[in-house]
Amino acid sequence: MDKKIVIVGLGLIGGSMAKAFKEYTDYTVCGIDTDKNVLKSAVECGAIDKIGNNEDIKSADIIYLCLYPKADIDFVNSHADLIPSNCIVTDTCGIKSEICAHLPIIAKEHGFTFIGGHPMAGKEKSGFYASEAELFAGASYIIVPCGAPRKAIDLLTVISVKLGFGGTVITTPEHHDRMIAFTSQLPHVLACAYVMSPCCKEHVGYSAGSYRDVSRVANINEKLWTELFTDNKKSLVKELDILINNITDIKNAVENCDDNLLRELLKKGRLIKEGLGE
Amino acid sequence: MDKKIVIVGLGLIGGSMAKAFKEYTDYTVCGIDTDKNVLKSAVECGAIDKIGNNEDIKSADIIYLCLYPKADIDFVNSHADLIPSNCIVTDTCGIKSEICAHLPIIAKEHGFTFIGGHPMAGKEKSGFYASEAELFAGASYIIVPCGAPRKAIDLLTVISVKLGFGGTVITTPEHHDRMIAFTSQLPHVLACAYVMSPCCKEHVGYSAGSYRDVSRVANINEKLWTELFTDNKKSLVKELDILINNITDIKNAVENCDDNLLRELLKKGRLIKEGLGE
Repeated sequence: MDKKIVIVGLGLIGGSMAKAFKEYTDYTVCGIDTDKNVLKSAVECGAIDKIGNNEDIKSADIIYLCLYPKADIDFVNSHADLIPSNCIVTDTCGIKSEICAHLPIIAKEHGFTFIGGHPMAGKEKSGFYASEAELFAGASYIIVPCGAPRKAIDLLTVISVKLGFGGTVITTPEHHDRMIAFTSQLPHVLACAYVMSPCCKEHVGYSAGSYRDVSRVANINEKLWTELFTDNKKSLVKELDILINNITDIKNAVENCDDNLLRELLKKGRLIKEGLGE
Repeated sequence: MDKKIVIVGLGLIGGSMAKAFKEYTDYTVCGIDTDKNVLKSAVECGAIDKIGNNEDIKSADIIYLCLYPKADIDFVNSHADLIPSNCIVTDTCGIKSEICAHLPIIAKEHGFTFIGGHPMAGKEKSGFYASEAELFAGASYIIVPCGAPRKAIDLLTVISVKLGFGGTVITTPEHHDRMIAFTSQLPHVLACAYVMSPCCKEHVGYSAGSYRDVSRVANINEKLWTELFTDNKKSLVKELDILINNITDIKNAVENCDDNLLRELLKKGRLIKEGLGE
């Protein structure tokens, strides 16, 4: 059955969602963005069927919010009256507690369904022109139900398979944000902190895979990540404290030339990594 | 002209050197190792022409030391009387100050040439069975001349091209170790410290490229890296202090919800990374 998909925000994630929907489904894809050039390009390259308007929102089956967290909430607030009761509204933000504190309430008041979502994919470049249909290939799609009915969750799962995701995980906003602080936010903090060493500018010729991997995501979108970090302050600060303590333990063992302790600490890291079968 | 190459230690690096010599040159390759099974396998798979003995050392053109730092020094000490005066002895260790404080002196006393070397390649697995001829493809080969004649340095450069390296860099032991503390040792400390978070064991489904990249080298050989870290204590501790301070600055900005400062810090990281054209 044909469905109408409205994608709000055609950046890296929204643009890639649009392209993936066009590539892998027969659904009608409407795109909304404040940048007219992006909308024009999206129509021209076939990433969307049409530029979305209020009428499309009124007849949408699913609305994917692909803006920054606060902008997603603002968009739903200002368009809630238009959203039909059989519509699923879902987001793609990197944090969930803030989104899930607001959108399920608005959804309930207006009779539509809200489900939090987080496609675990990205790249070092942002914006529509970096988007691609294959961005989600094999990636995890995290679903945060917020009390939504099973049928709606199943539909998002079915769609995630069509779009190429490798599997879904269902969890709470709090658990999501605690895990993301570790798996995603910490590496982004690290990358920025790492390249600030005065040695960084001279690295060519002295570096290989280790440098490349730790520094990769230093090419950060500081506006987006500032919002993601402060919205997840508690979990991120906790993970940063754990990391700083663990680095400091290793540093002290090196500084004291305590070979036995240093070997034990490194072995502990190795055993954890090996225990994961990685 | 045919040359006799003696490789001491057929682990990941020595084994890969042997295989690369056999794959890309016509030189005669002799292998020395304390593990008889490794020697047998190396002969059987054609990684070496023969098991090396004292006679081979007496007629070697180049000896590649591929043991741990202290073991390299011990090997040269106990075989110095056998090494001919036209022979180049070079190592492959990840740190250079310690090696270069000893081996050039022994070389001078016995009339042979010593040149420090560091092939900037590796992988998450160690040992002969993980070795491969292509390990050095495109990698940087760092040469630390320690006063060796230009002709000998040129020969190692010519060989590095034959073995598939992407380019050579010539520097001092001190500069090498300062750079390696940043480019290689810091990411290894980080990987071990990172996986120690209680969240790590639950990461599947919540992680993507950022987790994979930072944790990759946690599969560490703790015996080797304990020696490399403590031998480079001064530079490594300095880099760890810089990193801890930079992480702490970002953490404080998050904790204080200081959006302006946080954006500025992340932007600083981005501009450094972009400035490198990466």
